[in-house]
Amino acid sequence: MRLRVLIAPSGFKESLGADEVADCIASGVRRAVPDAYLRKAPLADGGEGFARALVGAVGGSLHEVTVTGPVGDPVRAHFGMLAGEDAPTAVLEMAAAAGLRHVPAGRRDPLATTTRGVGELIAAALDAGATRLLVGCGDSGTNDGGAGMAAALGVRLFDEHGAGIGEGGGALTDLASIDLSGLDPRVRTTRIDVACNWTNVLTGPAGVARIYGPQKGASAGTVERLEAGLERYAEVIARDVGVDVRSAPGSGASGGLGAGLSALLGATLHSRFDVITRYLAFDHLLADTDLVITAEGAIDRQTSRGKVPAEVARLAAARDLPVIALTGTVGEGVQAALDVGLDAYSSILTRPGSLDEALHGARDLLVSSAEQTMRMLLVGRRLAWQESDPQHRSRS
Amino acid sequence: MRLRVLIAPSGFKESLGADEVADCIASGVRRAVPDAYLRKAPLADGGEGFARALVGAVGGSLHEVTVTGPVGDPVRAHFGMLAGEDAPTAVLEMAAAAGLRHVPAGRRDPLATTTRGVGELIAAALDAGATRLLVGCGDSGTNDGGAGMAAALGVRLFDEHGAGIGEGGGALTDLASIDLSGLDPRVRTTRIDVACNWTNVLTGPAGVARIYGPQKGASAGTVERLEAGLERYAEVIARDVGVDVRSAPGSGASGGLGAGLSALLGATLHSRFDVITRYLAFDHLLADTDLVITAEGAIDRQTSRGKVPAEVARLAAARDLPVIALTGTVGEGVQAALDVGLDAYSSILTRPGSLDEALHGARDLLVSSAEQTMRMLLVGRRLAWQESDPQHRSRS
Repeated sequence: MRLRVLIAPSGFKESLGADEVADCIASGVRRAVPDAYLRKAPLADGGEGFARALVGAVGGSLHEVTVTGPVGDPVRAHFGMLAGEDAPTAVLEMAAAAGLRHVPAGRRDPLATTTRGVGELIAAALDAGATRLLVGCGDSGTNDGGAGMAAALGVRLFDEHGAGIGEGGGALTDLASIDLSGLDPRVRTTRIDVACNWTNVLTGPAGVARIYGPQKGASAGTVERLEAGLERYAEVIARDVGVDVRSAPGSGASGGLGAGLSALLGATLHSRFDVITRYLAFDHLLADTDLVITAEGAIDRQTSRGKVPAEVARLAAARDLPVIALTGTVGEGVQAALDVGLDAYSSILTRPGSLDEALHGARDLLVSSAEQTMRMLLVGRRLAWQESDPQHRSRS
Repeated sequence: MRLRVLIAPSGFKESLGADEVADCIASGVRRAVPDAYLRKAPLADGGEGFARALVGAVGGSLHEVTVTGPVGDPVRAHFGMLAGEDAPTAVLEMAAAAGLRHVPAGRRDPLATTTRGVGELIAAALDAGATRLLVGCGDSGTNDGGAGMAAALGVRLFDEHGAGIGEGGGALTDLASIDLSGLDPRVRTTRIDVACNWTNVLTGPAGVARIYGPQKGASAGTVERLEAGLERYAEVIARDVGVDVRSAPGSGASGGLGAGLSALLGATLHSRFDVITRYLAFDHLLADTDLVITAEGAIDRQTSRGKVPAEVARLAAARDLPVIALTGTVGEGVQAALDVGLDAYSSILTRPGSLDEALHGARDLLVSSAEQTMRMLLVGRRLAWQESDPQHRSRS
């Protein structure tokens, strides 16, 4: 009987997409167990690689589009058209158009960066015939509440003098009214589902500006300006659209893009992992699996709170399947990940060195780590086998 | 049936002795498999921790002695008396008296450092009643050919004017004659076995000064002076003692201490691994073992050339026992270690960081790594078990 392995990793931040991680693990597993039956279910978290991972998993095509990047320069973005869905379904990630990756280190100013390109990418998917959209949030370089995205699709945002406000999170403090009448009419007949981090809210002490602003380049003063802008944005939305987005789950996703998508475009926000596992038919995959291998750049206290390895471990443990994780960094609080069902983990690192070196070598490290992990499993398998037949000692 | 695990690691250079490594691994294994039957066979390589490891493995007592350190300051050294031997047997490591650890970074000058303390340590062991000596070489901070050691035991080394030469490798160029008549008479009736790196020779292109001088603080010019001194030393030994030590296996061990021990004290040089495994009755240990865990600070191209993990793997593989290795650094050429019988390896590292950080955290890293490795083995064991009984899926 061939060993059936399901490879269900997340991406490694700033290094490898989930699909690349899955490929590396598969190749390492094959080195140790050439006849293993491998299936890959890369679990992009809504951010970088989300569209590519879903297209890779369920089939479909990728389409490149040039859109306005977060600092105004054009960027090459892409969306996917999924095969086998009832309605023409496009999948896209906001990071492709407005990700932090597209913001040069010297220009990380969330007062200025815009999600305009996300709106352009949505328009391109509609042009391609999509009547359903799946939008992934994560890895954003913006904090404009999705205002730029909405504007690109015809929503008008005015200041108190009736002029259009500028781009970026800083301009939101000028917002006086919102007019949805110019919204691309196709949006109204399109079902839009959003895969996002459910725990991100728009404003308040745990609001997106305060939690994520600094990593997007915001100083303490800037954070307060961003927060004030989002507060203003939420007020106007409440008055002109009739929706309270301040603390709705996911409203803070991708610098508040979640709020814009739900309030201005009528999208439904979902916990990212639920969306992804449904599209992958993950439960079906688990049904004929002997071993699950998951992975993420880091495993730590955060892992058990909705990160891929913990979610995979929960689903696997519910079916009594062994699940192991490969990771770059093992952090404090890793025990919690074991508690939710992870059987064992291994870091891919093999020598002292900087994070940069590890990121640079991540591909080879993953392959080797997967190989050695499977070799460990083979040793364990051999021990069990000797136990049942102590006379027999050949090296299997 | 309880899993029988033999833990046979080397020390981790500059961090943990072999006995400490074995303790860490044992505690990690116990976390994952509480009822495992564990035996520890720490394989000190002759250097730091050799005496402690042998006493720990076969029983006996440790004795502290103050001796002359390599730069002349007193150092606390120790020797062990082994239990259960036919004759009173002392075990000592040269590094305890003249190791690089005892040479402050600012005073690393192998022209001056002396093995005098090793002679004093031998005298102390003889005072304690030993009639057999086991001397470990390795981790030395000296390059005096063992001249200081011999002088401490009564051997006289004269210059051409009949005066005693000074201490250190630099003084050997002054050597004109050697007089063994004053040698402590107890040495002549004592069997001295030396555990050393068999591949170290005294002089020539692969001589100890050229290969190891630089890491002891020697500049290129100093290396040539050391080489000239050892050449002179070998010449005088050949003439006055009648032994050619220039390229005898092990003669270059510990800055030429091997040459001094064999030529001036009548010691027998052995490959360090052979000595250690004989004292540990390693073959007997392997006979009732299911799994062998070995370890060393680094596993790389050098490993298959006589390092502990490779020697352990060879012995285990000959008995068809699975053997896995834990290590700090996985280097180039690790495949050779798998080729000699190692089944799998795992680095203990869990995050990017400097060598210093890894050394500092080595203890905890080893415990965790051993635990996770055993957890991987349990997963493998569970997979095999499912295979033989696919109906049964409880988490063992």
